[in-house]
Amino acid sequence: MELLNCTSPAMILEHTASVLGCSILDQKLALHLDEHDALQHLREHFLVPKVKDLPCIDFSCVDEKEECVYLVGNSLGLQPKNVKTYINEELDKWHKMGVHGHFEGSRPWALGDECIVDLMAKVVGARVEEVALMNALTVNLHLLLLSFYKPTSSRHKILIEAKAFPSDHYAVESQIQLRGQDPQKSMLLMHPREGEETLRMEDIISTIEKEGDSIAVILFSGVQYYTGQLFDMPAITKAGHKKGCFVGFDLAHAVGNAELYLHDWEVDFACWCTYKYMNSGAGSLAGAFIHEKHANTVQPVLIGWWGHEMKTRFLMDNNLQLSPGINGYRISNPSILLVCALQASLEIFNQTSMKALRKKSVLLTGYLECLIKQCYTKDESDPQKPYVKIITPSNVEERGCQLSLAFSVPIKTVYKELEKRGVACDMREPNVLRIAPVPLYNSFSDVYRFINILGSVLTASQKEQA
Amino acid sequence: MELLNCTSPAMILEHTASVLGCSILDQKLALHLDEHDALQHLREHFLVPKVKDLPCIDFSCVDEKEECVYLVGNSLGLQPKNVKTYINEELDKWHKMGVHGHFEGSRPWALGDECIVDLMAKVVGARVEEVALMNALTVNLHLLLLSFYKPTSSRHKILIEAKAFPSDHYAVESQIQLRGQDPQKSMLLMHPREGEETLRMEDIISTIEKEGDSIAVILFSGVQYYTGQLFDMPAITKAGHKKGCFVGFDLAHAVGNAELYLHDWEVDFACWCTYKYMNSGAGSLAGAFIHEKHANTVQPVLIGWWGHEMKTRFLMDNNLQLSPGINGYRISNPSILLVCALQASLEIFNQTSMKALRKKSVLLTGYLECLIKQCYTKDESDPQKPYVKIITPSNVEERGCQLSLAFSVPIKTVYKELEKRGVACDMREPNVLRIAPVPLYNSFSDVYRFINILGSVLTASQKEQA
Ligand SMILES: Cc1ncc(COP(=O)(O)O)c(C=O)c1O
Ligand SMILES: Cc1ncc(COP(=O)(O)O)c(C=O)c1O
Repeated sequence: MELLNCTSPAMILEHTASVLGCSILDQKLALHLDEHDALQHLREHFLVPKVKDLPCIDFSCVDEKEECVYLVGNSLGLQPKNVKTYINEELDKWHKMGVHGHFEGSRPWALGDECIVDLMAKVVGARVEEVALMNALTVNLHLLLLSFYKPTSSRHKILIEAKAFPSDHYAVESQIQLRGQDPQKSMLLMHPREGEETLRMEDIISTIEKEGDSIAVILFSGVQYYTGQLFDMPAITKAGHKKGCFVGFDLAHAVGNAELYLHDWEVDFACWCTYKYMNSGAGSLAGAFIHEKHANTVQPVLIGWWGHEMKTRFLMDNNLQLSPGINGYRISNPSILLVCALQASLEIFNQTSMKALRKKSVLLTGYLECLIKQCYTKDESDPQKPYVKIITPSNVEERGCQLSLAFSVPIKTVYKELEKRGVACDMREPNVLRIAPVPLYNSFSDVYRFINILGSVLTASQKEQA
Repeated sequence: MELLNCTSPAMILEHTASVLGCSILDQKLALHLDEHDALQHLREHFLVPKVKDLPCIDFSCVDEKEECVYLVGNSLGLQPKNVKTYINEELDKWHKMGVHGHFEGSRPWALGDECIVDLMAKVVGARVEEVALMNALTVNLHLLLLSFYKPTSSRHKILIEAKAFPSDHYAVESQIQLRGQDPQKSMLLMHPREGEETLRMEDIISTIEKEGDSIAVILFSGVQYYTGQLFDMPAITKAGHKKGCFVGFDLAHAVGNAELYLHDWEVDFACWCTYKYMNSGAGSLAGAFIHEKHANTVQPVLIGWWGHEMKTRFLMDNNLQLSPGINGYRISNPSILLVCALQASLEIFNQTSMKALRKKSVLLTGYLECLIKQCYTKDESDPQKPYVKIITPSNVEERGCQLSLAFSVPIKTVYKELEKRGVACDMREPNVLRIAPVPLYNSFSDVYRFINILGSVLTASQKEQA
């Protein structure tokens, strides 16, 4: 994979196939790429579902002993094997010593979040003091917006994607209302150009330049949940700062997927969940970031005892000594069960680096893209043939691992037929399947299997449609 | 225990001892009471720590094979045996079907909280639609205050205990600041009378009557964390409503401890944690209540996608359809691990009733009180003899299961000596030990053992002091 830095994934794949003396469509290529995948061993740390255990399987089309083709880590990551071990350790501690678990053992419950925050900070490119693990994603987004969105009559807008994830949309809308502003006037929605699916960076930057003086906060996703577009976070941050705006990111789909350097990029604030690429289970512990430069100037609006400095927290004298920075935003004591799940995942990330994961990811998703293009693009000479359109940007700098696919046949049928054949992926209203080969545990063979299954799925979908 | 309704626990205990032909101090009485305890079997559902596994044990003073004397359920409840089973079920589901767990199985993750909310509602005396399980306690307190505290120039105060739990104090202080008010003027702190430890209900009511016109919100604890005082919630609610105030309660120490009838009392809002008497582990899922009468008038201020009606939530069209009442306050998707832990506990509560638990509790804590009074009150004839003062009200109507004890000898020594001997209890700055015999799993023999150990502890503490 040494070629990666100087050339495109397509060229690497072509080159490798030609060295192997096979077509890019040949299984040989997938096997070769897996064999030379330096991160292949990381899959061993995860529990991969078997085809037979998935719901909706049609047993006549599958080998039920096989592992499923799990391409939905963008929605819910696989379970690290150590989750159970770590949870059992804490359940045993609870059994053995009850309340004393708060300050005993390797994961004292009262400090549970603090035990793993350094590993989390690494993944997002932040200093330890800039990150807190607490609550859930949208809750954290609210806590951050409460501090960063304080509109004035001249600077009262929040810039956000028109098709932001609903929770972000509602969060922004409700914050604007809380501050006595009118969402009609203060919610600046960024639309793609007519007929386009994704936003152009040049348009984002020019909107910021044009509207920046009235924008209080720019809130973007790092990776767009629907289209899979990866935004140029440092450029957005820079443009925003030039106009005096605060810039924050919802990293739900970026964390553990894209390389992040929140500190160096001087991002003001960010938040993320950990059930997608961070593999910590449904409703797991979320993260939040505030840049160090704000540590002593930006303060939390809603305060609880967990924001009080640890040293004097238990004196219980009701004289607030607020921790600086993001730590002051912690409101309640952390859940040790959720810490365990996240720790198991973070330790796997710590065996590699986001740089290495990203390198594999570019090739893995590039492989998926090449195969889709070769096999399933629109064939002008055969208008009946079902085809796939990739709406995710083709520029690798503008995407993470996910490709969002639209189809010429009804998407619900495609989804159902994929499910029957042991592919776990995810359908999003109104019109895409999101396919995410995750470099931490997906293989080139997973992608190869997906492409083959997709062939029979499209045929079946066409039949059903007819 | 049939005598309970018509007479005091002390009288029942005296009567029972005399029927047994023994002193109230005799172990016979404890054994007899345990034998006739209709709830005794519930202890079987919990994992009780062994003396040998506690930290700080002095092995020369204990029988290490014994179970410890766990009297700290007010801080962290014991682990229900089914916690591990239920968590393993969900980890196995995650293993087997990955993302499909959101809508499959007996506890679909996306509906996890909804699967157990009926059991929770029972414990607090609420209708199902009035309760949500989400976030942590202080986070919920904030979400509720955001809706209920909307100060005007004439009605801008929050009435709260002067010695409220720090998190509540900070929550109220920061909400007042958020709304542009001055905590010095708008935070009305209710102090006990000079020389008294607990608040008198007559003083609370007269303060409400006197100051009510300027009070927006009355926020009290159900049971005071430090003194163990149980407030007359219906009376406070009634008095508050008479003056046009909203009335809310922090039920951290009341839920699973006192009988609650939030709906019938017409309490406006309430919140609670579930790691104390609800036995769900450190940092577990919290609860929140809004009375049905507000379902269509009081709205959440901070909104997320989980507040959107389930029916259309996944259409992702960013047109908010808010669930009525407390369900609209759910911001983020719930954690299935935390749901499992709480379910295990709620099912045990569901084997009995708060009425039955309370009945046992009154006798159990009455027994503790009687023995302390008989053995360790101040002896005017022997001023050197260490003694114990109970600061919790002696009226059973004004307390839950916890007694808060002050000592004539240094409290840290008493605490340390108790720990050495296998008693798990809890010390709170500045000056109390909180002793909570929990009717769900503590026995009369636990109390008896505690009293005996306390004797040697006081002797040892006196020696150390000398
Ligand atoms: C009365 C009371 N309120 C609030 C809290 C804070 O709880 P949390 O950290 O779960 O928000 C506690 C914790 O013990 C408490 O006892
Ligand atoms: C981009 C984005 N933002 C917000 C959320 C909401 O997350 P939560 O329910 O954890 O608050 C999600 C969930 O998938 C998401 O993808």
